Amino acid sequence: MTTFNLPVRIVYGAGSITRLGREATAIGRKAMIVTYPDIRRVGLLDRVVEDLKSNGVDTLIFEEVEPNPRSSTVDKGAKIARDNKIDLIIGLGGGSAMDTAKGIALASSGTDSIWNYIRGGTGEVKGPVPPLIQVPTMAGTGSEINAGGVITNWETHVKTGIGHRSLWAKLAIVDPEVTLTVPEKQTKAGAADIFSHVVERYVTDERPSPMTDGIRETVMKMVVEYLPKALIRLDDIEARTQLSVASTTAMSSFVTWGDGGGVMSCHGVEHALSGYYDVTHGEGLAALLPAWMKFYLPEMKERFDLLGQKVFGKSDGIKATEEWLESVGLRLRLRDIGCELERADEIAELAIQSMPGLDSGGPKTLDAAAIARIYRDAY
Amino acid sequence: MTTFNLPVRIVYGAGSITRLGREATAIGRKAMIVTYPDIRRVGLLDRVVEDLKSNGVDTLIFEEVEPNPRSSTVDKGAKIARDNKIDLIIGLGGGSAMDTAKGIALASSGTDSIWNYIRGGTGEVKGPVPPLIQVPTMAGTGSEINAGGVITNWETHVKTGIGHRSLWAKLAIVDPEVTLTVPEKQTKAGAADIFSHVVERYVTDERPSPMTDGIRETVMKMVVEYLPKALIRLDDIEARTQLSVASTTAMSSFVTWGDGGGVMSCHGVEHALSGYYDVTHGEGLAALLPAWMKFYLPEMKERFDLLGQKVFGKSDGIKATEEWLESVGLRLRLRDIGCELERADEIAELAIQSMPGLDSGGPKTLDAAAIARIYRDAY
Repeated sequence: MTTFNLPVRIVYGAGSITRLGREATAIGRKAMIVTYPDIRRVGLLDRVVEDLKSNGVDTLIFEEVEPNPRSSTVDKGAKIARDNKIDLIIGLGGGSAMDTAKGIALASSGTDSIWNYIRGGTGEVKGPVPPLIQVPTMAGTGSEINAGGVITNWETHVKTGIGHRSLWAKLAIVDPEVTLTVPEKQTKAGAADIFSHVVERYVTDERPSPMTDGIRETVMKMVVEYLPKALIRLDDIEARTQLSVASTTAMSSFVTWGDGGGVMSCHGVEHALSGYYDVTHGEGLAALLPAWMKFYLPEMKERFDLLGQKVFGKSDGIKATEEWLESVGLRLRLRDIGCELERADEIAELAIQSMPGLDSGGPKTLDAAAIARIYRDAY
Repeated sequence: MTTFNLPVRIVYGAGSITRLGREATAIGRKAMIVTYPDIRRVGLLDRVVEDLKSNGVDTLIFEEVEPNPRSSTVDKGAKIARDNKIDLIIGLGGGSAMDTAKGIALASSGTDSIWNYIRGGTGEVKGPVPPLIQVPTMAGTGSEINAGGVITNWETHVKTGIGHRSLWAKLAIVDPEVTLTVPEKQTKAGAADIFSHVVERYVTDERPSPMTDGIRETVMKMVVEYLPKALIRLDDIEARTQLSVASTTAMSSFVTWGDGGGVMSCHGVEHALSGYYDVTHGEGLAALLPAWMKFYLPEMKERFDLLGQKVFGKSDGIKATEEWLESVGLRLRLRDIGCELERADEIAELAIQSMPGLDSGGPKTLDAAAIARIYRDAY
């Protein structure tokens, strides 16, 4: 018995950002926009503020989001939201902006640090959590479509999850036009993230279901087909549209609809990496993925064969993945992105410590020793 | 720009019916169960009533639903719901029970007949509409997952749609175990309905999208694969599970997610048929489908080729569909299900009159003359 729930209305397609003001005014009148300076630089922030103002929504701009967002930043934003009696929080940016928006919403319900609300934390949500609108400006994390986020404690290097039912966005606006200006590096990293969200579950799925497999195969094929097109021409709206749809699907409840299983333990390991080294999440994933796959291969050979056939039209799923990563310039090694070989055991311990349950889920125990082996293999 | 919305929580999988009482008690305390005598006969009604009672939910049983439910029945139920201050309506059965439940909920908000609320009708919803829980007992209509229904006015033979945002169920319980007792005839008719929901849009889609196509192809493949298994052994829980998931998906917002298009005009024509002759909806669809497909073939050949390749692994989509219908005993002709050749023009006019917009949507005008030709071809 399983529950499906997807209580986020999605307005999507080219130009959908123009609906933000009209939609926002039905939800709140004093909005905090959670974003980072790039969004102002490309001219999007001014457009959004103007649109909100002309629809009677006051705005307060919180522009301090960093990659791999930190609990200290979230806490700062939460205090500002509380002090200003914000009644709507708009995440505008990539996963870091949307996750920070979630963290601010949650922490602004009380006076405790967001760190009290991490998974396994003791924080109880008492006050009201302001409603969220999420506006992704790149395809990748899909954070607009679920009720979780990832926050880093920069003092301890622990990067871990928050999650609460109040963090479902009232509305997600998924406009591929606003992703046209995303540079090549972030476009690739985002695509690696989408692919990874889906392939991890797919190849570790011990109780596959035809519906879930069909959705996941479709998402992977879309990334494999449309990332190269976006790289040929970064403002290819068709390619950007398909990557945006794939991104939202990959992190939504769609991706287990039909009761498919699987685990996302490559993500679990990567979070330790980017919590420690502040590497770009998608690049960390691309570097880890082949080694992570080889770890599960003996137990899950059938699923890797299926991956090869269904997604790449080839017999060897791991080789096909490696070739595809190579072809789009994502065949990275950990050494390329600033990781150190001698930190293998330390990162492995950090991963186990940061992500409760990481070792126990899935078809095979992923303990610290196994993570360290994957790390070395990917170095 | 498109909006996606799926505000129905779904509890699904074998045994999920046991959650009904616990879930219902959080929604209402005086429930009307809208159903038909078969449900009592198989022992399900008593189980459900017992479960609701033990969770503190009083029940009133409205057991008068007929196939192709009539506005007079809906109006009768609505009066009972109003008089008894019902605060929760539970549709328990196939599409007829769930659509009647929707009609009763809507009409009980005032004193007007449900006929005032049909699409194109003048009725304005003023009073509160009681919340709905939908429990499909067969795979087919997928009525649990959308906010529309189909009602027949038996005096005029007009069968047409109702729809209102208040008709989204708060909860759908999709338990394949309760479908194990569905007889062969209804199992087949239900599967034809699922397949038709998806294939109609798929082959008439002038702006196909990879995500939408992937979801639709998956649903069709599931029906093609699992209906024969269910027919070999009616209580094959795996086959029933896949048919149930396919059924819910096929009528949900999933089926256009990614912005795929297409029209459901075979359904439009069939509703006139079952509004007139009271035939089993799925059998009417199976009889019409090949002739309906041939009507669109010249304009949409590429889509039919794709259907053949992706769903059947064959080159000719229409021939493959006919062969599959034949193989599962669904290669029907209108003459087999009680329709009369000389009524072709009358039924065609009725279809145009009953379903506003039927002629104008899609890749080709489907006027009364065209419908009459399809009818004769399918006779």
